[in-house]
Amino acid sequence: MTRAMSAPEKGTTPAGSTASFHAVFENRGSMGRIVLVCEHASHHIPAAWAELGLTGAARMAHIAWDPGALDLARGLSKRLDACLVHAPVSRLIYDLNRAPDQEGAMPARSEVYDIPGNAAITKEERAKRTQAVYVPFHDDVHIEIARRMALGLAPVIVTIHSFTPIYHGAQREVEFGIIHDADDRMAKLVLAHAPEGLRSMMNEPYSAEDGVTHTLRLQANPYRLPNVMLEVRNDLIGTQDAAEAMADRLAPCLSAALDDLMNGRP
Amino acid sequence: MTRAMSAPEKGTTPAGSTASFHAVFENRGSMGRIVLVCEHASHHIPAAWAELGLTGAARMAHIAWDPGALDLARGLSKRLDACLVHAPVSRLIYDLNRAPDQEGAMPARSEVYDIPGNAAITKEERAKRTQAVYVPFHDDVHIEIARRMALGLAPVIVTIHSFTPIYHGAQREVEFGIIHDADDRMAKLVLAHAPEGLRSMMNEPYSAEDGVTHTLRLQANPYRLPNVMLEVRNDLIGTQDAAEAMADRLAPCLSAALDDLMNGRP
Repeated sequence: MTRAMSAPEKGTTPAGSTASFHAVFENRGSMGRIVLVCEHASHHIPAAWAELGLTGAARMAHIAWDPGALDLARGLSKRLDACLVHAPVSRLIYDLNRAPDQEGAMPARSEVYDIPGNAAITKEERAKRTQAVYVPFHDDVHIEIARRMALGLAPVIVTIHSFTPIYHGAQREVEFGIIHDADDRMAKLVLAHAPEGLRSMMNEPYSAEDGVTHTLRLQANPYRLPNVMLEVRNDLIGTQDAAEAMADRLAPCLSAALDDLMNGRP
Repeated sequence: MTRAMSAPEKGTTPAGSTASFHAVFENRGSMGRIVLVCEHASHHIPAAWAELGLTGAARMAHIAWDPGALDLARGLSKRLDACLVHAPVSRLIYDLNRAPDQEGAMPARSEVYDIPGNAAITKEERAKRTQAVYVPFHDDVHIEIARRMALGLAPVIVTIHSFTPIYHGAQREVEFGIIHDADDRMAKLVLAHAPEGLRSMMNEPYSAEDGVTHTLRLQANPYRLPNVMLEVRNDLIGTQDAAEAMADRLAPCLSAALDDLMNGRP
């Protein structure tokens, strides 16, 4: 990963920069079918973007990243021997789970927060961030998926997210959300094997109609690869220990779902 | 484009090679909505692949490329002020309109021809060709589409192909085939504006169900970009003059279709 080093100018990609923020891989040598993708793993805002004008609290809030998601994804990667790919920068620079023409790709406002550095970005700046953050990440993921397909590994794409327990002041009851796009095969199987005692729901707290399944559409659907987006309420994975405990609960669920999928059940 | 220079070993990607066959762009600065993609533009087989063991006639036959398609695409690019992107190598090395897990990506047989260099390729060789040919091309196309989306240019993807008039001994009557995948908006409009006197048919001589719409699925569908695959019978564009004449007929058809699309007709 190249880090931008030039002088900060709020909300602007490093001038004349060829900075390119590549995906981070872990356990890439795994020959397992599941590929875990964590698009909101990081709250890192490279210096050139001058913290986007945000307070420290905002930069650590759920609008900047999915707290606990990377720890959970790492726990699953180990338990399932799955390749894991995650993002190196905050979703506030570019939300990797949004297409370049979606407003939310570089949001000027998220939940109750204004993002000053995104308030008035030009088309050219949108194109630069797309080039610097979105394209390298997704092309890296694409390379890995294409390689695995060519090797006959038949990848299954599982994206790992977390959501805030309180959104716009309202409490969310769901604890484990299972979200699908056009292909609901994996989602149904994961729901069927969801851990006891975990309040699990399909397409909650939001669904594909809210425009949140871009990675599934981009990386899995064109190849008809089975896929699902998993959302865990972030108060349940707020520490590394809690994330590990959740990985203990979810790994068997994913294993069982994959087993059913491979055996054509139900 | 990097050309492989190492000693030939039939059907094998240059040893230890990092050769990477990138897409070729023309008129990339165009600000028009249409992006033309010509995946079967070239019959070039880099020396390292030792002609795949084919005779000269086979290497120039429709199994190796789409004769006339690049000339037609260039004619359309000029008339429509459209960005054009085309392939640098033969589809017999890797068919860019096929996913890495499709047999046809590196076919051992095509129509009535055996392809010796593809007869017994290993998974590792499939992965290498995927890396050397498929990934660079489609990532280049993706970069361009993402850039155009970020700039608000709302791309429309049009792939340009040609087909053989006689296939497995049977004469094909269709002259202009208009093929769609999940999104048939552009296809219907193109058919509605098809030139008089040109035998034009929807989803002929083949359709998405035959697995021929990979580029549309990969590059357009994830973004809900309007798209269509155009197929012209290759005896109608067998010379550059003929291809230019066909471009004269098809450019107004595409313009009218785009105009209808932008104005929400019908």
